[in-house]
Amino acid sequence: MSEGLRENCGVFGIFGHEDASALTALGLHALQHRGQEAVGIVSFDGLQFFAERKLGLVGDHFSNPNVIARLSGSSAIGHVRYATTGNTALRNIQPLFADLWGGGLACAHNGNLTNSRMLRAELVRAGAIFQSTSDTETILQLVARDRSPRMIERLIGALHQIEGAFALVFLTTKKLIGVRDPHGIRPLVLGSLNGAPILTSETCALDIIGAKFEREIDPGEVVVVTEDGIESLKPFPPKHPRPCIFERIYFARPDSIVDGKSIYDYRHALGRELAQEASVEADVVIPVPDSGVPAAIGYAITANLPFELGIIRNHYVGRTFIQPTQKIRELGVRLKHNINRSRVNGKRVVLIDDSIVRGTTSVKLVRMMYEAGAKEVHFCVASPPICHPDFYGIDTPLEEELLASQYSLDGMRDFIGADSLTFLSLEGVYRAMGMESRDINRPQFADHCFTGDYPTRLVDESYDRHQDQLSLLTESA
Amino acid sequence: MSEGLRENCGVFGIFGHEDASALTALGLHALQHRGQEAVGIVSFDGLQFFAERKLGLVGDHFSNPNVIARLSGSSAIGHVRYATTGNTALRNIQPLFADLWGGGLACAHNGNLTNSRMLRAELVRAGAIFQSTSDTETILQLVARDRSPRMIERLIGALHQIEGAFALVFLTTKKLIGVRDPHGIRPLVLGSLNGAPILTSETCALDIIGAKFEREIDPGEVVVVTEDGIESLKPFPPKHPRPCIFERIYFARPDSIVDGKSIYDYRHALGRELAQEASVEADVVIPVPDSGVPAAIGYAITANLPFELGIIRNHYVGRTFIQPTQKIRELGVRLKHNINRSRVNGKRVVLIDDSIVRGTTSVKLVRMMYEAGAKEVHFCVASPPICHPDFYGIDTPLEEELLASQYSLDGMRDFIGADSLTFLSLEGVYRAMGMESRDINRPQFADHCFTGDYPTRLVDESYDRHQDQLSLLTESA
Amino acid sequence: MSEGLRENCGVFGIFGHEDASALTALGLHALQHRGQEAVGIVSFDGLQFFAERKLGLVGDHFSNPNVIARLSGSSAIGHVRYATTGNTALRNIQPLFADLWGGGLACAHNGNLTNSRMLRAELVRAGAIFQSTSDTETILQLVARDRSPRMIERLIGALHQIEGAFALVFLTTKKLIGVRDPHGIRPLVLGSLNGAPILTSETCALDIIGAKFEREIDPGEVVVVTEDGIESLKPFPPKHPRPCIFERIYFARPDSIVDGKSIYDYRHALGRELAQEASVEADVVIPVPDSGVPAAIGYAITANLPFELGIIRNHYVGRTFIQPTQKIRELGVRLKHNINRSRVNGKRVVLIDDSIVRGTTSVKLVRMMYEAGAKEVHFCVASPPICHPDFYGIDTPLEEELLASQYSLDGMRDFIGADSLTFLSLEGVYRAMGMESRDINRPQFADHCFTGDYPTRLVDESYDRHQDQLSLLTESA
Amino acid sequence: MSEGLRENCGVFGIFGHEDASALTALGLHALQHRGQEAVGIVSFDGLQFFAERKLGLVGDHFSNPNVIARLSGSSAIGHVRYATTGNTALRNIQPLFADLWGGGLACAHNGNLTNSRMLRAELVRAGAIFQSTSDTETILQLVARDRSPRMIERLIGALHQIEGAFALVFLTTKKLIGVRDPHGIRPLVLGSLNGAPILTSETCALDIIGAKFEREIDPGEVVVVTEDGIESLKPFPPKHPRPCIFERIYFARPDSIVDGKSIYDYRHALGRELAQEASVEADVVIPVPDSGVPAAIGYAITANLPFELGIIRNHYVGRTFIQPTQKIRELGVRLKHNINRSRVNGKRVVLIDDSIVRGTTSVKLVRMMYEAGAKEVHFCVASPPICHPDFYGIDTPLEEELLASQYSLDGMRDFIGADSLTFLSLEGVYRAMGMESRDINRPQFADHCFTGDYPTRLVDESYDRHQDQLSLLTESA
Repeated sequence: MSEGLRENCGVFGIFGHEDASALTALGLHALQHRGQEAVGIVSFDGLQFFAERKLGLVGDHFSNPNVIARLSGSSAIGHVRYATTGNTALRNIQPLFADLWGGGLACAHNGNLTNSRMLRAELVRAGAIFQSTSDTETILQLVARDRSPRMIERLIGALHQIEGAFALVFLTTKKLIGVRDPHGIRPLVLGSLNGAPILTSETCALDIIGAKFEREIDPGEVVVVTEDGIESLKPFPPKHPRPCIFERIYFARPDSIVDGKSIYDYRHALGRELAQEASVEADVVIPVPDSGVPAAIGYAITANLPFELGIIRNHYVGRTFIQPTQKIRELGVRLKHNINRSRVNGKRVVLIDDSIVRGTTSVKLVRMMYEAGAKEVHFCVASPPICHPDFYGIDTPLEEELLASQYSLDGMRDFIGADSLTFLSLEGVYRAMGMESRDINRPQFADHCFTGDYPTRLVDESYDRHQDQLSLLTESA
Repeated sequence: MSEGLRENCGVFGIFGHEDASALTALGLHALQHRGQEAVGIVSFDGLQFFAERKLGLVGDHFSNPNVIARLSGSSAIGHVRYATTGNTALRNIQPLFADLWGGGLACAHNGNLTNSRMLRAELVRAGAIFQSTSDTETILQLVARDRSPRMIERLIGALHQIEGAFALVFLTTKKLIGVRDPHGIRPLVLGSLNGAPILTSETCALDIIGAKFEREIDPGEVVVVTEDGIESLKPFPPKHPRPCIFERIYFARPDSIVDGKSIYDYRHALGRELAQEASVEADVVIPVPDSGVPAAIGYAITANLPFELGIIRNHYVGRTFIQPTQKIRELGVRLKHNINRSRVNGKRVVLIDDSIVRGTTSVKLVRMMYEAGAKEVHFCVASPPICHPDFYGIDTPLEEELLASQYSLDGMRDFIGADSLTFLSLEGVYRAMGMESRDINRPQFADHCFTGDYPTRLVDESYDRHQDQLSLLTESA
Repeated sequence: MSEGLRENCGVFGIFGHEDASALTALGLHALQHRGQEAVGIVSFDGLQFFAERKLGLVGDHFSNPNVIARLSGSSAIGHVRYATTGNTALRNIQPLFADLWGGGLACAHNGNLTNSRMLRAELVRAGAIFQSTSDTETILQLVARDRSPRMIERLIGALHQIEGAFALVFLTTKKLIGVRDPHGIRPLVLGSLNGAPILTSETCALDIIGAKFEREIDPGEVVVVTEDGIESLKPFPPKHPRPCIFERIYFARPDSIVDGKSIYDYRHALGRELAQEASVEADVVIPVPDSGVPAAIGYAITANLPFELGIIRNHYVGRTFIQPTQKIRELGVRLKHNINRSRVNGKRVVLIDDSIVRGTTSVKLVRMMYEAGAKEVHFCVASPPICHPDFYGIDTPLEEELLASQYSLDGMRDFIGADSLTFLSLEGVYRAMGMESRDINRPQFADHCFTGDYPTRLVDESYDRHQDQLSLLTESA
Repeated sequence: MSEGLRENCGVFGIFGHEDASALTALGLHALQHRGQEAVGIVSFDGLQFFAERKLGLVGDHFSNPNVIARLSGSSAIGHVRYATTGNTALRNIQPLFADLWGGGLACAHNGNLTNSRMLRAELVRAGAIFQSTSDTETILQLVARDRSPRMIERLIGALHQIEGAFALVFLTTKKLIGVRDPHGIRPLVLGSLNGAPILTSETCALDIIGAKFEREIDPGEVVVVTEDGIESLKPFPPKHPRPCIFERIYFARPDSIVDGKSIYDYRHALGRELAQEASVEADVVIPVPDSGVPAAIGYAITANLPFELGIIRNHYVGRTFIQPTQKIRELGVRLKHNINRSRVNGKRVVLIDDSIVRGTTSVKLVRMMYEAGAKEVHFCVASPPICHPDFYGIDTPLEEELLASQYSLDGMRDFIGADSLTFLSLEGVYRAMGMESRDINRPQFADHCFTGDYPTRLVDESYDRHQDQLSLLTESA
C-alpha cells in the first residue's frame, strides 16, 4: 500500500481577490493529503509581504481568523509539505521568501530538483548564504544572482539551470507566476474565482472554494498573472510530457480531475484491469482503506463479487502514537486498522491495494485476515511491482528497502503470507489510463518506479551525496 | 446524516497491568469517534492517583511517553467526551476524582442522568460544593455523603438515587468497578488482556490492544474487579433491557461487536431493508461518507445497482475552519465533501444516509449532486424520521430544530430538494436488528428519538431547567 | 538573611469601580514581593463570576488587556501566593471559589490556619469533597454547611471555627468582605479610590493606583462593603493584638506604612539599635542587598562609618537557574550576588543582614568577602536568632534546619566563618519598634520565631500531621 | 535617568570547556542588564553547530537542562540583545549563523555599524539574500563573498569594510574569535576558566562562573583562540581609543572592572565631583534607584548629608504592564517607583540621577516628591546634558526628543519642576574618570552624546535612511 510513499507538496496561489489568504488556506486544506507536516502562506498587500509558516495541519493554524487577518493583501501563495530534501526544521517550511534587488520574491514548490546539490555547492562557493536546506532555495539564489533587468527574465534564467520535477508558484510585488517542468512531472492547474486567477496542484483545491477549473498548465509552460491578465510563456525547449503515474495511482485526491477524467475513474479502471488479469476464485472483495477502495470497487464489478468493508480504518491517526514499552510493542497494537470480522470469517478474500512499497503493512493485514478466520487471502495489487526509487518529489525508501527489489514474485507472496499475490501489469496500467500501450521510446508517463526509465538526468546522484552536509546547523523549533 | 448527533463519551478501565495507562490511552484512541473534545486518564499506583485531563484528541496529548510515564500504576480509567451537561471547561473533563473518607474515587461516565439537576440542587442546599457542572459529579457527591461503611455500599447507595443512562467505570484504591444502568441504554463490555480485566464502551477498544472480548455487562449489573477476581452484583430491581438504537445506527464503530454481530452487519441489514421498502429506479447507489457506507453497500446488493463513491470526504476536517468573511461564507465552501463528478453526471442517483437530524448537510449534498449533473436524486435514509430529542447522552438539537418535527414527509423532501425521500420504517429497523417486530409494551430498544417512548422518567425536564445556573463561575483554560 | 523565609500571600479587593480587575492586577503587582509563585483574580459583574488563576508573576499574565477584559465587573478580589499548606498545583491557586446555596463565594487568604487539618478530616468524614489541598478551602466548606439564613452569618459561623492567622477578603454577589484574625497576625488595610473601597495587605498596593489609605483593619474585625457603604463587625471575643514582627523586619515593602511609620523607618531603627549594641571596629558598612539596606544605612549613621554597596545583586534571578553538571555546581556559581571588590579589598567590613534563617547564604557571602580581600568580616544581624518555626503563613524550614537551633552563638559564628557575629537583642527589636520593652504577659508582637511564645493553640501540630495525606491526587498543570 | 537609553547587546564566548553552553548561559545571565529582549546561544561539537534563539530573558529558556543538553560541544558563543537596527523578529536574534564555503560561522555582535545600510544595498544588488534585517548579517555576507583562502583572512577582509562600533565574537569549526573596533567603543574582555579562554563584554560575566579576568581586548585587536592557544592580530591602522563613556555612567554593572577600577567607583566619583560642583543646601540625599545609587552615595559623603532610600523601586517590573483604560492611565499608576514618604516629608531633598534623556520619569519623580511633602527638591545629575543621539549601539531617542536639545538649563528645570537642576560638567566627568581634563583633539572617550563629536563617519546617516526598507517581509513568531 502506497502509504510507504509520501508526496512532498501541494501548492496554491491566487491573484487579485480580497480574501486571498483565506482562500489559500481553504485551497491548502483541500490539498492536505499532499503533505501534512507543515504549511505556510505568504501574502502581499501592495507594500509588504506577510508570512505565516507552521508545523502541523492547515486547520491547526490557519482556521484562526487572527492569522488570516495578519496575512493581508489581495494576492497570496501557499504550500503544504512533507520533507524530502531538507529536514523538518522551521526554516524549510515554504513558501520561501527573499528580499531581492528590485523587490521581494516568494516561492512554493512541488517536486524535487535533481541537480540542486551541485548548484548549491557552486553558489555557496561563490558567496551565497543559504537560509534553509531546501532544494527550492537554490532557485531563489539563482534568481538573486541573475543580472537581467526584469524579474521575470531573472526567473527564467534561473529555471534554465535547474533540472528535475517542479511545479512552482511565485509571488512578486507585481505578479503571480506558475511554472511546470518541461516533462510536466508534477501537476499544476489554472482556475479562477470571480475573475481572480488561481494556480494550484489539483482541481479539488478549486472545488472547495467553488472556483472554476480553466485548464492544466502545459509541461514547460510559464504562466504570468498580472493586473493586466494572464500571459503564457514557453521558454524551454519542448520535451514530450511524462506526468507522474503515481499521481493517478495513489497521490491525487479521487475527486480531482486530470485529463478530463476523475482520479477515481482511473483507479476504478485499474481495478477492472486487475480483475481481468487476475483469476482468483473468491467470496468477497475487500479494499485496503482508503486508497484501495476505488480499485476494489472496479475489481468487484468486473469479477462479479461482493464488495465489503472488511478492514476498518481509524481516521484519528494523525500524529504517531508512541508505543511506550516493549511489552506494548509486542502486542502488535492495531492503531490504524481493525478487521471487520463478520465479513472475513470463513471467506475466501480478495484483498485489493493500490501498490506495495515495503510490504510491512501488507504482512500485518494478511495476518489479521487469517486471525479473523479468512479461509484464503488473495492479495491483488492495482499496479506493478515498485523496483526503483523516485527522485522527483516522492519520498520513496532506499531501493534496497523496496519489497520488489528484494524478492521474486513468489518471494514477495511468501513474505506477505498470502495464498496468492497478483500485480497489475505495466500494460494494464497504460490500458487503464486509456492508452493502447506504453510507448517504449517516448513513455507517456513518468513510470520509473516500475521501469527504472527516469525522465531526466540525475545529476546529484552522480555528484557524491555524502560529500558535504547541506548545513552544519541544527536548531530547535 | 447523523453528524447532527453527538455521542457524549467513551470509557475504558483496566486493572492489574503494568502498562495500564498506555493501554488506556490506546483504548481511548479506538473510542475517539465517541468524543473528540477532551480526554482524560486517571491511574493508581498503590499509593497515589495520577490525573491528566486535556482538551483535544487522545493522540494530541497521550502519545507522549512522558505523559504516560506520569500516569504510573497498574490500574487506570479513561474517558473521551463531548460536552452535553456542562460546558467545555477543563473542570468538566473526566475522569472526575474525589478524595473521600476512606480513600480516593475516580469516575468516568458515558450517558446522562435525567435527575441530576434536582439532586444537585438538594446537595448544594445541604452544603456540597461542586467542582464541575457535570452531572457525573452528582454521583461522587452522593457517594461522599453515604454513611455506609464500605465504599462499594456507598457507591450502590448513590446509584440507587440516580436515574437516566449510565455506563460508569470507577477506580478506587482497591477496585475497578463497572456499572451499566438498569435499561442498559449505554454500552459496556468486559474484556481481558493477559489476565488483566478491562471494562470499556465498545469491543474495538479491546481489538486495538489485542485483548479478548469476554462478554457484555448486563443492564443493571455492577462488576467489581479486585485482586481476588471479578464479582458481579445486581443491586437494582430488574427492568427490561433497552439499549440505545443509535449505537447500532450511527455511533458505534462498524467493527465493534454487539450481541454477537458486527455493527457493520446491522447497518448492512438496514440498507437491505431499506432497498426492499423503497422502490426507486436508479443507476447508481452513493453513500454519504463515512457513516452511510455500510447501508449503501447493503442497499446496492439488494437493489442490484452499482455502488460507487460519488462523494469524497476530506478526513482532515478536525477542528472547525472559520470562514472569515461574508464573501467567503457565500461561496458555500466545500470543506468536508466534494462530488466525484464522473460518477454522478447524467445519472439517477440513490443517495444513502444513516439518518437525518437537522437536514442542513442533506440539502447541501443534494444541491451539489444536481450541480454535478445528476439527473435524479433519490434520498434514502436507513432509519425512521427523528422527531424527539434524546436525554441519555446524545447531544440532539432542540426538538424544534429536528427536520422531522418541522415538516411532513413531503415537506422534508421539498426542503432537501431531492426527487424523492424515503425513510426506513421503524419495523424495518427492528427486522434489520433481527427482531420479528417491535414489542410495543416492552420495546427492545431505546428508540425514543423515533417514537417519543422514553425508557425512564425525565425528572429534570419537569424540574425547571432555567431555575438556576449550574455554576456562577466562568474560568478560562 | 530572610530569604530563607517566604511569606505566603498578599490579598487585594475592590468594590464598585469600573476598572475593578485592572486595579486589582496593579495592586497585586505592588504586592508581588509577598508571593511569586501564582496569582489569581476573581471578578463579579452582577451576574457571573470570572476567574483567572495562573502560575507565575502578575505581569506574566495580567498585563494582557484580553485577560483583564475577561474579568469584567465592578468588583474583584485577587491573590499572590507562595505555597505553604498545599502544593503548587493549579487547583490551589487563589482566590478559591464555591457555588453555594444562595450564590457564589470567592475567597483570598493571607495567613495559615492552625486547625485546618483537623477540620478538614471532620468535613471529609461528613461527606465534603475538597477541590484543593489549601487550608483556605476549609473556610468555604464550613460556610457551605452552615445553615444560617444569611451569607454573612454563615461566614461568621465558619470564622468562629477556624484558628490561626488569617487576613481574608471575600467576594459575594452583593458584598466585599474583609476579615482579620483576632490577634491581627497578618496585616489588612482599608483604602479607597474615588469612593470605591479597597481591602489589601499593604499600603503600597494603594499607592500604586493613587488610592487613599483609610485605616488598618482591627484585629478581629469583619468589614462588610456593600452598595450601601461599609459596616464594621466585631464578632470575636477580644484578644490582645500581636501583629507578626517579621512583617516589619523582612516581609513588608519598605515604603508601606504600618502604625503611622514606614517599614523603612522601622528597619532603619533596627540598624541604629544594632549599632548601639554591637561594638565593632570597622572601615565600612555593607548591606546584604536588598533586604539589609535600610538597617545598614541606620547602622552606618549611628556607627559613623561609610555605607557602601559592597555586594551587587542580580535582579534578573527570577526562576531558578539549574546547574546542569557536577563540575558547574563545584564552581560555586554566583547567580545572585557578586562582590564589588574595590569597596571590600583591604577593609574591615561590617556586613548587615536583616536576619539569619539557615545561614547558607551567609556562609557564601562571608567567603566571597574574604576572597575579595576583606581584612575582617563582622556579621551583624538586625534581629535576634530564629529558633522556632512559624505556623501562621511564613514558610519557615523545619526547626532542625534553623541555624540558631543547631548552634550556640559561637558555633554560628564558626559556621558562618566571620570574625564576629552579632544579633540584635529582643529588647532592641522592641525599642526599635517604639516600645519601651517587651511585655512578657502580653507580648505586643507575634515574635514566636525568636521566643517560642505562639499567639494561638497549634491544633494541627498535636493532630498527627502524617496521619493522612491531604489528597491522593497528583495532576500535572 | 538613563533608562531612556538602552544598550543593544552583551556577548559571551568560551572555547574548550565541556560545559561550554551552560557557562555561556550563566555568563549571559550576568550580562542580562545589557539586553532583555532576546537571547541566543550557538555551540559547536566538532561536527555540528547547535542553535537556540529565543525572545525573553536568559533564565526563561536557558535554565532548562534539556536546552543546555541540546547545545552540545566544548565551544559556544551567546548574545543578549535589545533591538537597535532591525525589529524584534526571531530572525534577528543572535548569534547569527551562516553555512559558508569551508564551514560554518556564527557571530554575536555588540555595537552598531554606521555603514551597514549602504553595504547591504550593494550586497543585495550583487545577489546576496539576507535572512535578517540586522546590521550584523552584513558582516557574514561580506565574509561569504571574500575569496581569500583562509577563514580568518576572509573575516579580516570583511572587517576592513565595516565602520562603527563592534565588539564581536565569532565561532568557527576551529576557532573562537574576538574583535573590538578600532576605537574600542564597545567593551570586550578576555578571561579564562581552568584554561578555557573566554571573551565577553564585562568582567561580571567572568565573576559569575568564577573565571579569571585576563585583560581587556585592545581597540582594533582581533583575538584568535584555537586549540593551540591565543593569537593576537592588529589588522587595522591604529586609532586613538575612545571607549563609550556611557558604559561607565550607566550601562555596565557596578561590579564590573574597567581599566582597573570598578564601575561603582567611577560612579561614586561622579557623585563626589557633582557635590563639589553643585552648591545645594539640603537635608537628605536620595538616589533614583537603582542606577543613581553609587553617585548618590558619593555625593552624600562629599556633601556630608545623610543618604536615604527615599524612592522604592519595584523590581518585578519586567514586561510592560498595559494600562487598559483611559481612566486608569489618568491615575498616573506608580508601577515602578513609590516614595518612601517618611524620608521625604518636610525635607529639602537632593535627588541624584545618573543622567537625563527625555526627562519624563524625572518629571514624575519630582512631582511625587512634592506630593510626599518635600520642602525643596534639587535635581542633580551625575553627567552633562545629553544633546545628541548615539549611532553605536545605544538606542537613543531622536534628537528632537532629548530634553537637553529642546530646552535651556532653566527650561529643563521648569519642565522637570524642581527647585534647582544641576548637571555635572564635562570636565567633571573626565576628572571622575581619573583624567586631568578632556583632550579636545583626541578625546579619551566616545562622548558624542554630550559633545556631538562622533568618533567615526556616519555613512548611513547621509545615505538616505528612508530610501528602502530593509525587508519587505513581516513574519509572526
